[in-house]
Amino acid sequence: MRVYLAGPDVFLPDPVARAAALKAVCARHGLEGVSPLDALPAEPAGWSALAEALRIARRNEAQIRACDALIANLTPFRGPGADAGTAFEMGFARALGLPVWAWSNDPRRFAERTRAFLGAAGRCDAEGLLVEDFALADNLMIEGAVLASGGTLTLGDVPASARWRDLGAFVRCVAALARQAAG
Amino acid sequence: MRVYLAGPDVFLPDPVARAAALKAVCARHGLEGVSPLDALPAEPAGWSALAEALRIARRNEAQIRACDALIANLTPFRGPGADAGTAFEMGFARALGLPVWAWSNDPRRFAERTRAFLGAAGRCDAEGLLVEDFALADNLMIEGAVLASGGTLTLGDVPASARWRDLGAFVRCVAALARQAAG
Repeated sequence: MRVYLAGPDVFLPDPVARAAALKAVCARHGLEGVSPLDALPAEPAGWSALAEALRIARRNEAQIRACDALIANLTPFRGPGADAGTAFEMGFARALGLPVWAWSNDPRRFAERTRAFLGAAGRCDAEGLLVEDFALADNLMIEGAVLASGGTLTLGDVPASARWRDLGAFVRCVAALARQAAG
Repeated sequence: MRVYLAGPDVFLPDPVARAAALKAVCARHGLEGVSPLDALPAEPAGWSALAEALRIARRNEAQIRACDALIANLTPFRGPGADAGTAFEMGFARALGLPVWAWSNDPRRFAERTRAFLGAAGRCDAEGLLVEDFALADNLMIEGAVLASGGTLTLGDVPASARWRDLGAFVRCVAALARQAAG
């Protein structure tokens, strides 16, 4: 089973080493991890004229289409919730019918994190915009897709300083996906 | 043409009035706007057992599947970039082959907004995570999907205090989509 590894991990100081570490966990569980950094077997000739960023976007979409499942790192990234690129890729995989699995190194609920981010305790922010409060770990489209697709969301409870290093929740997530795939 | 209206507009103080205003713009251009708040013609019986948030997620997915295009409001939401639920829905529409159009009331580049958010000027944040810097308006998956699908991104330049009210960029976006659909 080929598993696309979505997440802000590509922004980490050594993204190649990070991808290798995630792939090694997958391999130990009999899964093939596919990183957004991986090259495609062949790129359409027309892509060579695209700006680098747009070529990366096409490549990531093609990689997801060539995978059987997706695992997303939802550890909050520069704000109260998941990285938007990761959310995009989850939606992409979900529309294709792929199982969408997820993990995060922040165990708090989305509403709690949003209120901490806003520095406000109420139903709304200072501009009157509602705080989404459904007892979920992130935006309802994100957690909804995980559950609707048959995946699970694994939450790690680690110090904030370890949230970009600790792979305990990721290992448990991969193990659970491998068990389901084998069963 | 049925157009799904993705965006954090659902969190605005009067989301029903907001949806009506967006739909009225669509109607003036011969398009049918579909809001995340709209009911489905019929919901599968099994959904009644779902928690409200998960039912909303299923409904939004079904609404996107029943549309011909998507317009996303990318105005930055509680962080330097687009709302993650909106990003999810863009990825969902993109995988289905829908044209993905977008608008935003913040004309700055993603990298500039990210650095302002971080309060830092360099290539990386304080934890060493890279600032995505591709001269795009948001994460590369988001803008990449708009361009790859044949859509356009319309940027409005309005005071921050007007960013959840001003519909000038949305009107221009709808007009451009209507022109393309008619041509």
